[in-house]
Formats: sequence, structure tokens, C-alpha cells
Amino acid sequence: MATTETSFQPQAMAPIGVELTERQKLACLHRILAGLGFNENMAGHVTMVGDASGNLWASPWGLWWDEVRASDLCLVSLDGERLDGRWDVSPAIFVHTALHRTRPDARVVVHNHPYHATLLATLGRLPEITHQAACMFDGALALVDEYQGQVLDEDASTWLAARVGSADGAILVSHGALVIGASVEEATYRSATFDRMCRLTADGLMSGLPTREIAPEHRTALKQAFRTHALDAYWNGAMRLLLADDPTVLD
Amino acid sequence: MATTETSFQPQAMAPIGVELTERQKLACLHRILAGLGFNENMAGHVTMVGDASGNLWASPWGLWWDEVRASDLCLVSLDGERLDGRWDVSPAIFVHTALHRTRPDARVVVHNHPYHATLLATLGRLPEITHQAACMFDGALALVDEYQGQVLDEDASTWLAARVGSADGAILVSHGALVIGASVEEATYRSATFDRMCRLTADGLMSGLPTREIAPEHRTALKQAFRTHALDAYWNGAMRLLLADDPTVLD
Amino acid sequence: MATTETSFQPQAMAPIGVELTERQKLACLHRILAGLGFNENMAGHVTMVGDASGNLWASPWGLWWDEVRASDLCLVSLDGERLDGRWDVSPAIFVHTALHRTRPDARVVVHNHPYHATLLATLGRLPEITHQAACMFDGALALVDEYQGQVLDEDASTWLAARVGSADGAILVSHGALVIGASVEEATYRSATFDRMCRLTADGLMSGLPTREIAPEHRTALKQAFRTHALDAYWNGAMRLLLADDPTVLD
Amino acid sequence: MATTETSFQPQAMAPIGVELTERQKLACLHRILAGLGFNENMAGHVTMVGDASGNLWASPWGLWWDEVRASDLCLVSLDGERLDGRWDVSPAIFVHTALHRTRPDARVVVHNHPYHATLLATLGRLPEITHQAACMFDGALALVDEYQGQVLDEDASTWLAARVGSADGAILVSHGALVIGASVEEATYRSATFDRMCRLTADGLMSGLPTREIAPEHRTALKQAFRTHALDAYWNGAMRLLLADDPTVLD
Repeated sequence: MATTETSFQPQAMAPIGVELTERQKLACLHRILAGLGFNENMAGHVTMVGDASGNLWASPWGLWWDEVRASDLCLVSLDGERLDGRWDVSPAIFVHTALHRTRPDARVVVHNHPYHATLLATLGRLPEITHQAACMFDGALALVDEYQGQVLDEDASTWLAARVGSADGAILVSHGALVIGASVEEATYRSATFDRMCRLTADGLMSGLPTREIAPEHRTALKQAFRTHALDAYWNGAMRLLLADDPTVLD
Repeated sequence: MATTETSFQPQAMAPIGVELTERQKLACLHRILAGLGFNENMAGHVTMVGDASGNLWASPWGLWWDEVRASDLCLVSLDGERLDGRWDVSPAIFVHTALHRTRPDARVVVHNHPYHATLLATLGRLPEITHQAACMFDGALALVDEYQGQVLDEDASTWLAARVGSADGAILVSHGALVIGASVEEATYRSATFDRMCRLTADGLMSGLPTREIAPEHRTALKQAFRTHALDAYWNGAMRLLLADDPTVLD
Repeated sequence: MATTETSFQPQAMAPIGVELTERQKLACLHRILAGLGFNENMAGHVTMVGDASGNLWASPWGLWWDEVRASDLCLVSLDGERLDGRWDVSPAIFVHTALHRTRPDARVVVHNHPYHATLLATLGRLPEITHQAACMFDGALALVDEYQGQVLDEDASTWLAARVGSADGAILVSHGALVIGASVEEATYRSATFDRMCRLTADGLMSGLPTREIAPEHRTALKQAFRTHALDAYWNGAMRLLLADDPTVLD
Repeated sequence: MATTETSFQPQAMAPIGVELTERQKLACLHRILAGLGFNENMAGHVTMVGDASGNLWASPWGLWWDEVRASDLCLVSLDGERLDGRWDVSPAIFVHTALHRTRPDARVVVHNHPYHATLLATLGRLPEITHQAACMFDGALALVDEYQGQVLDEDASTWLAARVGSADGAILVSHGALVIGASVEEATYRSATFDRMCRLTADGLMSGLPTREIAPEHRTALKQAFRTHALDAYWNGAMRLLLADDPTVLD
């Protein structure tokens, strides 16, 4: 039986109910992911290409993801210099900069230490493609299998970007996770999926049993579905639930 | 010592306190199960035979289970065509249709990717009958041990229904869970029990130790008890707790 | 170095702030334990010797532990006959009756299927005495290593009580947990500790590593401490937190 | 590639918004850690050097950490005698006293039985340095690998302090965790990190796979970072979230 490729085009996507700026969306990413385990207290940072010059909107240093609002985001150059904003940015902004320089598709780069990804980082393992949603990372996973200390300058940034290559999800050994998307929506959805993949893989490793990876011929259609209509359904629902809980994230 | 079969007939079942339509009950199923791990963001769908012609009430595509209300449910034909409703239905509605066509007892079909069932799906294992409540699935479990991509047309639907057979609970390898009941109440109670069975089985596998399956001669009486008086006690309590938390599910 | 036995006598125990009847305390036990994993939906029941004739206050059948109030408790005879109350009692009340008949110290008997105890019940294992609080069960654990179906009559009750013997905590294989105390306070504290012990033991089994049981010579002093001043500190704190959350449990 | 040592000096640390006394900070430590697993009901106690004479502020005996307020803390001498306060102090205050006597850097000593540390305590294992934050304990971990009963007098206190030595984090076999800091802020941050390290280590042990410890040459810079600017970011964020939830902790 061949895989049918869906031509599904939703007629009536349930809306969020409010127009959002890119900066507001980026603040919301912090809150959504904080609720999904991206919350080793104040660890982690996110960047988003903010304008044609390549400057980045970045997480404020010192705030926890669960308290970030749109007005807390900072503008930084690709050299890591803060251009605007009330707060500092992390000295580890260089985790992000070379990826933005070298990959036009990497508009949003998420870095944090969610538990299950960090567990795989201590085991030196990548998550496996053993369930449908994991297919969004088919052919796009990288294990950065060498720990070189904090990423605090251009050289370290270049080194890291070379090892991540064209991947959309990476395990940084002894460190944490890196997830990349072309938009805030995509980076959020992929990040949510990434830590769940890591949990399944870690639990599979604990069982000592073989796992069932999805056959390559089925992955393409699923990867496509998760990049198109599924993405909006994920984001809109996540946003409705977030805004019902705390609309001040948009401030 | 022989198993005594209970003739227990409750005299005073604690009521829900409100009359519910079938459609309202189906909305409540989404919320109850979302609180029990059936919440891989917007994944999953449920169908219920809605009238004599066999048309189905189905989950709205694009809403998360934790936000579904009665008025969000859609009516679809057994061919997967939407007949009524504000929202789309999932193109994977074909997970459900052939089961409804071929099994008169399958009035309600629940599909989602709850964590522990999905873990067994990556290990290619069925949950074991190692505790009392699991007996409700005695002789009624199926492992669909081949992953054929998304279920997006009649052929795939027929293929899946043939592999599920007469089971009430199934693990779909590399995919998730399928739970079937003769009513919303039964499908909800079975689904809640199914993921817990999967958790016990997965943890048992991680220990590497042998597990104690319940002897076949004890299963029948328990299966009967869980299909009769226990069912109302489960549903009424779950509903009281849900409605105290958010009565708008009935809208 | 010898173990010092504490002569600690608190001077100023933080009070609950309200006088409670025995029946109110029993209702509170349900709520406290429901918050600690004794919540396989509506499963489980508790009994307490209620008067000189040996009649028992028992959990109402059909309510979930998280919704029980004092006025919901039922009075039943040691023969399992309901004498008073708005609701039925479980037909499995015979889990309790023979224990009350044969053990004067068993004023309160708690039965449910908390997750980690149920996991050990599927593995056929007792929790180990590997940390301080576990010492409250030193020499008082029983594995009922045979599953005989539901406990629905006097014969089954006698059979079970004989296998539990003088234990205060028991794993019922393929079934769940049984915890016994001389008072509501003691039964609550022991139950809370029991499932945590089971979790530590199960996780230890998953690691495949040897565990460190506390040497017998240290257990006696700890067991005594947990039966005296620690008991009030546990109960009063648990009650303050419960009543701040929902005082209607006392109704 | 050499590790770059950051010279990062935040220009604009997000404030807590209220001035706090040392005693208020100590009350807040109880609440923050109770939310992070330091909550085996009423177990555990914390001490802080309170004045030049070496007297200690200590947790009130009988209150749960989740209900402690600043006015509940008690003043005790280094001999364990209560000097001031509404409540008793634990007879196990001797877990703390010899450490304060012998280590001027040990201004705050935290003891409790958080789950994952207690799991390692039953396995007789220390947490490993396998991720960045764990570096704050580089060269500063001790396994007290002998269980000698409760610590209820000066002799036991001296015995324990000798085995902890200069460590900032210790696993007490069959018992729990001990975390030491030069300030409330540091002790809180270290405690939060300690139980997470223990969870990663325990899960790694369950997998049976080798783990990736961070190379010694990278640990020093990370340890320094976690002792300086990271500390304020942790504490201020934790405090903002706590005070938004329940400001009465300061009473």
C-alpha cells in the first residue's frame, strides 16, 4: 500500500483572535516552551532575524522564559552587540550568530536545556524517528558530539554552526538542545516536538529493547504535512491557550 | 478459592447534576482525556455514530482537545465528507470510518498519541493484563505491527480496520493508540485505563523483570464489572470534576 | 557510634485551627491521598472503626476520592451491610472487614491502586527499607503474592487478612496497596510514605543496581520517631494545606 | 579551541522589586525549593548564620516548607538550643551545627529528601558532572556512604561534618541531600541544580549507557560563571515568580 499524500487544505482555521507582531510572537514562544520543559530556571535564549540588515531580536538576559513580555526583547547585531532594549543579552548569544549568518532559512534559533534533550546530551545520543511527529526532523538532526565550553565568541560560534550544518534539531553533548525554524511558529512547534522525541528515545534506551524507526519512504509525506497545515493548527491552539492564561505576554 | 461474581447493583448513584446530549458528552470526552495525557498538542480525533444513517460526529480539525466545546463538533459521512459544522475534520478521519462500517459495537472510536501508548508504539509492544482494571481489555487487544503512513483514504481505512479486528484497544506501531467503545462513557473509561496500562507495561519492561499477568480465570468477572456498574461511577465522577472546572465545554 | 534515641517533645505544635470529628478526618484522608497518587479515578476505599459495636465508617461507592466530604461517608456493619448513609458502599468492602475483626490495632484500613505500589504489584515485589521514612514499616510489610480475584465475601476477606497478617503495609499482587493504621492520622501518613517507598524501589529495580537497605539496628529509633512526634507534624501540615484549598471537605 | 572566559557584567539586572531582609530570604528559600521537589511532606530543615555570635536562623519544626513565612523562623545557638521563635526546631538540627562551626563559608546549610537525590541515596551514588550547570559542584561533591541513624547530638554532628568535608553538595546514603552555600541565594540555586543533576544521573544509570562527563578543563570557567552573574539572574527570577504567587511568605 502506497502512502497517500494529503492535499488537505483547511477551509476554516480556528483563529487566535488577535493580530500579533513578530516581536509579540517571539515573546509567546518563550512562554509556550517554558510550559513544555524549556525551563531550567533562567537558562536558554532565542533569536529571530528582525530586519533586512540581519539584526536579531533576542531573549533578555536575566528574565526567566515564564516572565518574558514582548517589550523585554532586545535588538542585537550579528556581532553580539546590543543595539536596543531594556536588558542585557546573554554572552552566549554566539550560540546563534553564525547560524543566522550562514543559513538564510534559520530565521529563528531556539536554545535551552529541556530535561529530556539534556538527558540525551549526557548520553551522547540523538532522538530517533520512531513516531509520526518526529518525521518533521527527518534528515535534519545533528549530534554535536564534542563539548568545547560555553559559546562566547565568533570562533566558537563558527565552530558550532559548522557542526550543526543544515540540521533543524541538534543535541549539544553535555549541554542541551538547539532547534531552528524559518518562523516563530515553526521553531515553536519543532521545539515542542523535539523534547518529546527525546523523551521517547530516552525511555526506549532505558528499556533496552529495539525501537521501530519509521521507514524512510513514509517520512517525506509526514514531514511535508507537519510543515504546512499542521503548523497553523499547532500555533493557533497554543496561542489561544496561552493568551487565555496570561495576555500580558503581549505587552 | 473461586472468584465470586458480584451481583452488586448500586442503589444510589451520585448524579452528574445536569442532563447531557450525546454531542455534549462527546465534547466532554475530549476534555477528560486531554487531562489524562491525550494531549500531544492538537493531535488525535474522535468519532461517534450520530444517527441512523451512520453519519459521524467528529472532532473539529485545528482545535486542541483542551478547548473543544459541543458546538465545535462536526458531522461527517462515512465517506469522510463534512456535512455540517464550523470547522474542518482531519484528513485522517479514515482511521475511523471503516471501523464504524464494519463493527456495530464501535459507536465511539478514539485516536490519539498519549505518551505511554506512544512509547509502546515505538517498542512494538502491547500493554499487559497485570492489574484489575486492565481486565476490561481481556481478549480485546491488537497490535497493528506495521506502519503504512497516514490513514488518508478508504483503502488505508479498510486495511487498518482489518488489523484492529474485534479489539477494543490497539497499539498502532510508530503512531499511537486506538480505543473503541459502545458509548462515549465506555470509550472514555477505556481510554483512561489504556494509557495507564501502557505506563505500567513500559515501566515493567524498563525493570527487565518478569511481570504478573492476571490468570485467565479471574479476568471474566472483572471485565464484566468494569463494563457495568464501574462505568457509571467512572463517568459521573469524571463529569462532576470536569464541569466544576469548566462548564463551557457544554456550549 | 551508637544511635541516639531522641527524647524530643515539641513545645508548640503548629495547630490546624479547627476541631475535627473523626468522620471529618476520614473524609480529609481521602483528599490528602488523592493528591498523592491514590487516584486511579474512582478506585479504592477506606474504612474506620466507628463505634464500640465495631461498625465501620466507609468510603461512599461512586464518588472519587477528590470529591468526598464528611457527610458522604457511610456506616456499615462488619458483615458489609450498609447501616446508614446516602450512598452505597463498594462490594469489595470485604478487603477490610476481616482485618478489622482480627486486629484491634487496625482502626483504619486504606486500600487503593496508587501508581508506584501498583507497579510493584505487577512485578510481585515489596518496597525496600532504603530511606529513613521507610522505617515506619520496619518488620511490618507483607506481599500477598497470589491473585484470587475481587474480594467480595467473608471467605475472601478471611483469606486476605491471613496473608496480610500483622503487616501495616501490603502489596497485593496484580491489584494494589493496603495500608493500616491505628488512627486516621497514622493511616494517612503511612499511605503517603508507602507509595513513595514503592517509587524508590521501582526506580532502583529499573537501574539494576544494588540498593542500600538501612541496617536493622537503626530502624527501631526511626520507627518510633515516625509514630510519635512526626505524625502530628505530618497531619497538621497536610490538613492546613488541604483546608486552605477546599474547606468544604468538612461538610 | 580554548575556552573563553566571559567577562560579562550585566548592565541592567531585572530587579525583584522589594527590599528583603536575610530572614525573609531564608523563608523564600523554603518556598522556592518546596516547588522543586524538596517536599517530602514536613521533612528537611535549613539553617543560616544569623549574627556575629554564630547563632542560627532555622526552619520551624512542624511546618511544611510550603507554608513557612519569615516570622516562623527560629533562632538557635550552635549547641542546638532555641533562643527565640514561636516554634520548636528539629532535634536533627545537629545535621547543621558542626558544619557551621567548622566552615566559615557555610553560611547556609540546606537539608531535605528531594526525590532524585534520595533515589541516589538509596543507590549509594553521587550525581555526575554531565551538563553545564552541574559544574557549579565541580570538585565539591561528597558521598557520605555510611548510614548512622539520625543526627541528634554533637558527636553525630562532628562525624557528619568530617565526612562532608569541604563539599557544597552531599548525598547522605539512605537519607537524602545536603547543600551548602555562602548565602541564601547561592544555597537556593545550588539546591535547585543538585536535584536536577541527581535526576539526570539516575536516568543515565537506568539506561545502562555510558555518560559524558564534562572535561575538567572546561569546568572552571563554568563554575565561576554560575557563582557570579548567573546567581543573581536565578534568584531574582525565582523571587519574582514566588512573590507574584504568594507575597505572604515575607510576613
